[in-house]
Amino acid sequence: MIVVMEPGTSDSNIQRVIKFLERHNFRVVLNQGDYMTVVHAIGNKRLFNPMSLESLEGVKEVKIIQEPYKLASREAHPKDTIVNFDNGVKVGGYERPVVIAGPCSVEAEYQGLLDVAYAVKEMGCQFLRGGAFKPRTSPYDFQGLEEKALIYLARAKEKTGLLIVSEIIDAADMPMFESYIDLIQIGARNMQNFSLLKAVGKSKKPVLLKRGCSASIREFLLAAEYIMCNGNENVILCERGIKSFDQSYTRNVLDLSAVPIIKKYSHLPIIVDPSHATGRRYLIEPMSKAALVSGAHGVMMEVHHDPDNASSDGEQSLSVEQFTDITKRLNKLIGRIDYDNRMTKQELNIK
Amino acid sequence: MIVVMEPGTSDSNIQRVIKFLERHNFRVVLNQGDYMTVVHAIGNKRLFNPMSLESLEGVKEVKIIQEPYKLASREAHPKDTIVNFDNGVKVGGYERPVVIAGPCSVEAEYQGLLDVAYAVKEMGCQFLRGGAFKPRTSPYDFQGLEEKALIYLARAKEKTGLLIVSEIIDAADMPMFESYIDLIQIGARNMQNFSLLKAVGKSKKPVLLKRGCSASIREFLLAAEYIMCNGNENVILCERGIKSFDQSYTRNVLDLSAVPIIKKYSHLPIIVDPSHATGRRYLIEPMSKAALVSGAHGVMMEVHHDPDNASSDGEQSLSVEQFTDITKRLNKLIGRIDYDNRMTKQELNIK
Amino acid sequence: MIVVMEPGTSDSNIQRVIKFLERHNFRVVLNQGDYMTVVHAIGNKRLFNPMSLESLEGVKEVKIIQEPYKLASREAHPKDTIVNFDNGVKVGGYERPVVIAGPCSVEAEYQGLLDVAYAVKEMGCQFLRGGAFKPRTSPYDFQGLEEKALIYLARAKEKTGLLIVSEIIDAADMPMFESYIDLIQIGARNMQNFSLLKAVGKSKKPVLLKRGCSASIREFLLAAEYIMCNGNENVILCERGIKSFDQSYTRNVLDLSAVPIIKKYSHLPIIVDPSHATGRRYLIEPMSKAALVSGAHGVMMEVHHDPDNASSDGEQSLSVEQFTDITKRLNKLIGRIDYDNRMTKQELNIK
Amino acid sequence: MIVVMEPGTSDSNIQRVIKFLERHNFRVVLNQGDYMTVVHAIGNKRLFNPMSLESLEGVKEVKIIQEPYKLASREAHPKDTIVNFDNGVKVGGYERPVVIAGPCSVEAEYQGLLDVAYAVKEMGCQFLRGGAFKPRTSPYDFQGLEEKALIYLARAKEKTGLLIVSEIIDAADMPMFESYIDLIQIGARNMQNFSLLKAVGKSKKPVLLKRGCSASIREFLLAAEYIMCNGNENVILCERGIKSFDQSYTRNVLDLSAVPIIKKYSHLPIIVDPSHATGRRYLIEPMSKAALVSGAHGVMMEVHHDPDNASSDGEQSLSVEQFTDITKRLNKLIGRIDYDNRMTKQELNIK
Repeated sequence: MIVVMEPGTSDSNIQRVIKFLERHNFRVVLNQGDYMTVVHAIGNKRLFNPMSLESLEGVKEVKIIQEPYKLASREAHPKDTIVNFDNGVKVGGYERPVVIAGPCSVEAEYQGLLDVAYAVKEMGCQFLRGGAFKPRTSPYDFQGLEEKALIYLARAKEKTGLLIVSEIIDAADMPMFESYIDLIQIGARNMQNFSLLKAVGKSKKPVLLKRGCSASIREFLLAAEYIMCNGNENVILCERGIKSFDQSYTRNVLDLSAVPIIKKYSHLPIIVDPSHATGRRYLIEPMSKAALVSGAHGVMMEVHHDPDNASSDGEQSLSVEQFTDITKRLNKLIGRIDYDNRMTKQELNIK
Repeated sequence: MIVVMEPGTSDSNIQRVIKFLERHNFRVVLNQGDYMTVVHAIGNKRLFNPMSLESLEGVKEVKIIQEPYKLASREAHPKDTIVNFDNGVKVGGYERPVVIAGPCSVEAEYQGLLDVAYAVKEMGCQFLRGGAFKPRTSPYDFQGLEEKALIYLARAKEKTGLLIVSEIIDAADMPMFESYIDLIQIGARNMQNFSLLKAVGKSKKPVLLKRGCSASIREFLLAAEYIMCNGNENVILCERGIKSFDQSYTRNVLDLSAVPIIKKYSHLPIIVDPSHATGRRYLIEPMSKAALVSGAHGVMMEVHHDPDNASSDGEQSLSVEQFTDITKRLNKLIGRIDYDNRMTKQELNIK
Repeated sequence: MIVVMEPGTSDSNIQRVIKFLERHNFRVVLNQGDYMTVVHAIGNKRLFNPMSLESLEGVKEVKIIQEPYKLASREAHPKDTIVNFDNGVKVGGYERPVVIAGPCSVEAEYQGLLDVAYAVKEMGCQFLRGGAFKPRTSPYDFQGLEEKALIYLARAKEKTGLLIVSEIIDAADMPMFESYIDLIQIGARNMQNFSLLKAVGKSKKPVLLKRGCSASIREFLLAAEYIMCNGNENVILCERGIKSFDQSYTRNVLDLSAVPIIKKYSHLPIIVDPSHATGRRYLIEPMSKAALVSGAHGVMMEVHHDPDNASSDGEQSLSVEQFTDITKRLNKLIGRIDYDNRMTKQELNIK
Repeated sequence: MIVVMEPGTSDSNIQRVIKFLERHNFRVVLNQGDYMTVVHAIGNKRLFNPMSLESLEGVKEVKIIQEPYKLASREAHPKDTIVNFDNGVKVGGYERPVVIAGPCSVEAEYQGLLDVAYAVKEMGCQFLRGGAFKPRTSPYDFQGLEEKALIYLARAKEKTGLLIVSEIIDAADMPMFESYIDLIQIGARNMQNFSLLKAVGKSKKPVLLKRGCSASIREFLLAAEYIMCNGNENVILCERGIKSFDQSYTRNVLDLSAVPIIKKYSHLPIIVDPSHATGRRYLIEPMSKAALVSGAHGVMMEVHHDPDNASSDGEQSLSVEQFTDITKRLNKLIGRIDYDNRMTKQELNIK
């Protein structure tokens, strides 16, 4: 950690900073230039919140040197994490990228879900997704079928063998999710719901952690760290778009460079959700392809059996025909990617 | 709601949109220009999520006309909401702006909290704040004293008569908060934690809802709507800075125009937290003054009894002396504001 | 154009808006809901700045329906624009994607430029880039070799047959650029330098227009419109990253979905510059691949003959070896893309 | 400057960085922690672009310690700059804040401009503004009356004694501006038009430099540096809103904390333009008041003689009555501000 002092600040302010850092068990090196003094704190800053220094008198700025996450970091764990599922599916490293697909919300008509599930299975995808508890911006929007939806998903799993993904929004629902669901999703709006992060951290179930739409990559990895330091290292990350000043053509901006960045600084798998990132159907195919060639370990898509007559969000999904059509081309692309070379050590260290 | 169709889209796509809207009980008016067709949907769109339309074939964009919040809106409730507290303190409307002050976290040493509380009381402020459960970006940072902190705060209230503010991060803690706390805070990171919003919505206790650092004003008011439509209309809003591309001199950008905007479109009180918005001590005074003249119903500040030796975030706070000094000038400014004219009907309707 | 009136605004305010629109030759349709009135203006809004309406009394918001650019729009010009160069190179449509490469700045040592040029040529690339006039954030940074650099580039063209790209920053330099340069670049910081846009608009030379780092896609296409409506339709667009709240791992966020969006709404070619977008060498390869599969008409990269001993920015470039290595893999990927299907009509109209 | 090396990078990469820095005349201090190595470069980094280091092999991040602007910095010039005008008006330091007002564009009807000018004069304001050359996002919008507008403004100056402000968009127009205009404005879109910055830097006329809508405060002060290092130190800065993700209620977000930040780090005067920042009439009064109490040296407002019948942007302006009404209240507020204490040394050094 680097503490930059204000130009011309007093010696007593500098001494206060040094004392403070030493009290927190840092080794301190002082570098004085002509105008400015910089205090270099060496040690395990992960156990210390640097922000607390920023308002000490005479401090101009605190600069983080070592990444504040540890378990999630590549340096602490150089080998790629592979998340393993019961049926042999593996996510991460140089494993074949996976496809997660299904309706935004599970709806009352079970047959529709099953139709989608069979199509997803037929295209060789590995996971069926479906919302049971919906975190909706407006309280007047459909809030989900709750446990009934989880039961439907579990039944679809029995029929198809697909692994099941669904979003949890309340720690109290953990027992339900543990019995029905294979991959528990933490949604973007709950990325910093620390109670929820701790709750899934105490489970053994794999967690799909979506990036908050204004979370920096560092905050994203710190959210993963919350889960991991509570004991659950089976975390799959998901980039799903960040807020920007331009909302005329898409809801968010898909930050695709997050994929190779996260692969460089973390060992965790990272997938991409182009449906939520862009909110536009015609962008799903090109952005899925782009995600896969940039090294993503999978993509996630919304598919609905009857988009025009859905009772909720279903319409923003692909129809089964569109999904089948796109997935054919994605499978062709996946087949062509040379996994051993997709992100070689050489690439990772190119800089 | 306005549905803009893609230029040259087919009639069947237009008919599908119309059918869809009629099925959701909208009255539909079709406006056709030379290039483009626009479908105007008239009716209560609050019970309908417009995003779901955006992926229907041939739809280019959906534009919201009526604000999606209702209970929080000025049109549904033209008179200012005044939140009343037991001891006669009132927040909102043309009431005297309030000051909320206290340490970031309540710490082990009770006397320190009490020293701050007496100073806050002496300056004529109305509320003592203090963190008990801390939502920290890093799992390795101090997570708060939990119930012990709430007990300390309640004891400080007994001594000083100050009202108590503290942040809740888990719905399961509601009983504890209801017994100790006067104003329950929902932090910025939990602004869209809908389980938590529903929980405080079922309480009678006033709620201090902080704006998420990437929440639009519309999303902010929809979060208030969640609380209100669950039965609790005692909501005080708090602007505390939004994320921007410039993080060299401040953590966030204080969006001060949110104050008059929210006063125009909502009847709820709105206060400002310049400490968290800027993260820099020297900005607290000018930004507090700016908040007050722009019409804020109060300001919130961090004060610590011994910033240099705090065990956690305390250092980013004002010292008691600095707080006293600034508050003297703020009180002078508050005394000068002509409340009846601060934001007159004329101003609200100037446009 | 849709003019949303404030809820409960007076009839005279509505009449003023109608009168105003009629004076500007719009046909007006009035839609009145229970709460709100919406004025729908039908006609050629491209000759009219909607912002001017936003402050009329009683107006809440003005929403654009028809895109404000015309010559740049797909609807006015459904067929892809192909920009043709003297030596037969074509950019746009379903032509083979191009690669532009070369040093950030042309430096004093001509042989270094020539070494890079030969490597660029050998890899089958089409364009050599090099800065002559540098727009630098700090006045103390190297400002470029000016005309001498253009002469060097022209000499490298003679030797290699590569087309030459360089950035113009002052309209007064147009004669120089017209004699030496094949593709005149407008940099991101000058995207809204309207004097410069008009100057290149009056030339016949193809223009490479980079997106401003905070320009919306609409503003980007309006900048292209400036050039086109002055007579020059040979415009190639370039996405090069936008500003975001996260600047820890990259300078900007590469907005890759801009590629398929622009291909949907405009007929102009669009390329991608991953070097400037990310500012990190290890991201160039994955982001170039992602750009190509998402449909970009080309990529642009910085290459330097001796990055470690460059007199200016050269260090942020790839070395010749790294460039050769990456370009081999890109060429392989380019060879695999099925151009006729890269962005089919079907995909464009999927929604 | 701090160069953070990648964890575990090789010694040769570290040596390359050291050699590089020494070649650029930095004194180098090496700090090695358990995981990471940090190279501290001490010396005059203002003559060196740190970005060039960011792509050296093994470099993770470069962190700026000393602000890259020098002439604009408070440390190089501790006393406030006061910009003096011929008629005795002074802008900056503890001088009475000024008001700049006038129409967005000067229009064909001279009498309208004169009516506004007399109202501006009568309210005790110091400057008349009016656009002559308009930088418009769309090429189809009104581009200004050009020299005729400057002549009108000069005539209004003769009648009223007001100082004249107008925006320049092309360096070639400097002679015209030098003969007619007292304060030459560089607009937000041209803040990094370095040719233009150099041109006004060679003049003796005061310059009003507006912040680019995505410029960091550092980039803003570097743009001022461009003007100053070319010889013109009479620079007045103007905050006018930055881009954000929320554009539903305002065009931009007014970054008001930029006022005290710039007063801390620079000696240059800083004013605020709430009209362009917010784009909404009802926000001008509260944001002007907020600007003044936060320490701004002035505010700038748009006023039009007949907003409802303006040929261009005039409608977004205040009417003369509204302007008079607001300015009365602003003058009362200005009268109350205790200038000697507005931003005392104590406040500047509070941290």
